[in-house]
Amino acid sequence: MVETERQRIVIVGAGLAGALLACMLGEAGYSVGVYERRPDPRARGLTGGRSINLALSVRGIHALQRAGLAEAVLNDAIPMRGRMIHSPAGRLTFQPYSKNPNDAINSVSRGGLNVTLLDGARKHPNVRYHFEHRCIDVDIDKPSVTLLNTADNETTRVDADVVIGCDGAFSAVRARMQLVDQFDYSQTYLGHGYKELTVPPTRGGDFAMEPHALHIWPRGGSMMIALPNRDRSFTCTLFWPFVGPGSFKAVKSEDEIQRFFQANFRDAVELMPSLAEDYRRNPTSSLVTVRCSPWFYEDKVVLVGDAAHAVVPFYGQGMNAAFEDCVALVECLEQSKSDRHVAFERYFRGRKVNADAIADLAIGNFIEMRDRVASPAFRLRKRAEGMLHRLCGRWYTPLYNMVTFSRIPYAQARRKAARQNQILAVIGWTVAVATLMVILGLLWGLDMR
Amino acid sequence: MVETERQRIVIVGAGLAGALLACMLGEAGYSVGVYERRPDPRARGLTGGRSINLALSVRGIHALQRAGLAEAVLNDAIPMRGRMIHSPAGRLTFQPYSKNPNDAINSVSRGGLNVTLLDGARKHPNVRYHFEHRCIDVDIDKPSVTLLNTADNETTRVDADVVIGCDGAFSAVRARMQLVDQFDYSQTYLGHGYKELTVPPTRGGDFAMEPHALHIWPRGGSMMIALPNRDRSFTCTLFWPFVGPGSFKAVKSEDEIQRFFQANFRDAVELMPSLAEDYRRNPTSSLVTVRCSPWFYEDKVVLVGDAAHAVVPFYGQGMNAAFEDCVALVECLEQSKSDRHVAFERYFRGRKVNADAIADLAIGNFIEMRDRVASPAFRLRKRAEGMLHRLCGRWYTPLYNMVTFSRIPYAQARRKAARQNQILAVIGWTVAVATLMVILGLLWGLDMR
Repeated sequence: MVETERQRIVIVGAGLAGALLACMLGEAGYSVGVYERRPDPRARGLTGGRSINLALSVRGIHALQRAGLAEAVLNDAIPMRGRMIHSPAGRLTFQPYSKNPNDAINSVSRGGLNVTLLDGARKHPNVRYHFEHRCIDVDIDKPSVTLLNTADNETTRVDADVVIGCDGAFSAVRARMQLVDQFDYSQTYLGHGYKELTVPPTRGGDFAMEPHALHIWPRGGSMMIALPNRDRSFTCTLFWPFVGPGSFKAVKSEDEIQRFFQANFRDAVELMPSLAEDYRRNPTSSLVTVRCSPWFYEDKVVLVGDAAHAVVPFYGQGMNAAFEDCVALVECLEQSKSDRHVAFERYFRGRKVNADAIADLAIGNFIEMRDRVASPAFRLRKRAEGMLHRLCGRWYTPLYNMVTFSRIPYAQARRKAARQNQILAVIGWTVAVATLMVILGLLWGLDMR
Repeated sequence: MVETERQRIVIVGAGLAGALLACMLGEAGYSVGVYERRPDPRARGLTGGRSINLALSVRGIHALQRAGLAEAVLNDAIPMRGRMIHSPAGRLTFQPYSKNPNDAINSVSRGGLNVTLLDGARKHPNVRYHFEHRCIDVDIDKPSVTLLNTADNETTRVDADVVIGCDGAFSAVRARMQLVDQFDYSQTYLGHGYKELTVPPTRGGDFAMEPHALHIWPRGGSMMIALPNRDRSFTCTLFWPFVGPGSFKAVKSEDEIQRFFQANFRDAVELMPSLAEDYRRNPTSSLVTVRCSPWFYEDKVVLVGDAAHAVVPFYGQGMNAAFEDCVALVECLEQSKSDRHVAFERYFRGRKVNADAIADLAIGNFIEMRDRVASPAFRLRKRAEGMLHRLCGRWYTPLYNMVTFSRIPYAQARRKAARQNQILAVIGWTVAVATLMVILGLLWGLDMR
């Protein structure tokens, strides 16, 4: 393909979705310019901060395989094979995610993964990155983007054949599309926020807790989780209400922090020497669900990942869904080469229902994680699900496993789980009635003697 | 009150809400600057165009009374006492709105009403209007607004104590608030759009149809309505789907227009000499519902009317609800003089549930108007409702009447209507069972002979 014939694509945002998509479009031969507000993380060291650790699972791994990057990413990941539930008294219960010991979710650092993805485009000279370029305007009709170079304060306009918004939940590209007639849009915040804390390695340099698990301190209405890091520390994330009892507003002073954690997260407090300092220093961030429709404008602009469908993090699927978007978009462009508008329409139709499904599931999983994982009924149910899955794995797969360990589209997984639940209820009632009849029979038999 | 002590309020938008609020806040002694994008309608003649006629009812009238403007407005209005249903064959059925002949909704022209409201502030030298000033930025923390004078292309910044967004469904003030953490927002379009047409006066200079009615051509999935004007014409509005059969997309050529109207709106076609021209010339506009939360930022910024809660027009309550907002805001400011933040919070808490209720009711009424008003079951029900209302008006008032002819808060009206419907269902079943028993009894009696 001759350079002048190449379609010019501008990607706004070099985060996870933008960097992976750049690799894939580079491989497909497009001329790709990626513009990112932040400095190059490879030049200045990783940006830490507000992002919780990410759980990479089957959907994300599949997309990385397509880009030839799965191995490099998984080498830096820590597999987590189940949930480790911490009771208020500090008692531990391990709930494996699957009957299959190879089914694990993988704790990866956002910063490290981002660098791997950015390096992934090195072999494609047709992909060019421009850091410290903030998108300040988008002309969706040309299309073009106007960029402010924050290093030298110069403004430039870049024309393209396509502008792709990979610029996250607060997307500038989407903000421009919001002004288009008949563009549906919603942003909805949870009443809970999040804050990061740390469990450092032990003095002996080892993990302070089981590394191959996602740790949860469910506390009814709020929770803390912890994911392992390669340096043998854990990144903990508090999910608390902003206001009310046990909220970020109610727990402020050093004294309140210590007392509240002693009462609610006793076993964790011992492992967190810098608790009060981390708590005060680290920001409290919000959790937003973003939905919009459509995700494209003519054959000129299209949205990918959080820019199209930001979800709350409780199913660990935000990044995985964004990577699925990248695969879907590249496939649609491949299949409808002669008509980009058709490609975008097909991409949107295929992904939208699934993005809506995972958005709902993620909010539902928050309730499950904070309120129910600790209950005996929930544990009994999980055990029954696991048993059914082992016995008749062909027709029974728990919802969590379909979402996390398969590539069944999210909406389809949700429908299948609803059907399975109905069957489960019928079986449950049948067993209950049969048991009752046996008991009555025995009593009657005793009576006959 | 000394000028320097006055709180400076900037209102963005001199439409209906902005102009009424300016009168009220002027009366209350504030120093008010109103900035409006369009030119002064008093200088250049009324702007016609895309707005459907407005139906002023009790809530709006009450607010106008508070501002001393009700009489002037009602003098220019045409009362409509019921719905006139036009069947496809051209048969007319009149459905009165109420047992009370004084209960009427009032057809007013947006342009004329706007002028009356703008003139209403004449007696308050502390209210100043600035037309052709487009709000291009809002600093919600100062607060201040940046305005582009479209006459001379000069930009100015105006500082204030309070900025009030009365700038409609596509509010620039709200767009800035949307960037604030934890601001919930949604914009949702209907799949239907609207287009204006005209029924001019007859050759003899009279109304071509009954003037004291709101005319409806319900056609299942779409409809046309017509409201009378002071010049004895009617403004008709088509509410059609954008795509599909019988949509704006499907009906385009002169031939298609004539054929479609002949088949579906036969009696109207005769009265519309410029139908095809109007249809082609007038724009097709969208219908959007906007919800957001909260409607204020600290003690600095607050939203009123469509800017806070744009609704679809099918309950005729958009303007009436906006006028209720004005009264509520002025009352809250009066009651919490020392703490504007508290005033805004109380205003928001009081109005939000009601704005949500009327948004839902307006969408529901669209379905009722286009699909059900023509059905015999609906007419029977309306007649039963009217009878109950006449017989026991103290405890039974139809929902439409509570919304339109009372000031019962929208959310409360909706709850009351749900309870009434339950009672109605019980009565219906009782009557049905009693009737059945009487019939059976008669048959049995006949049998006995």
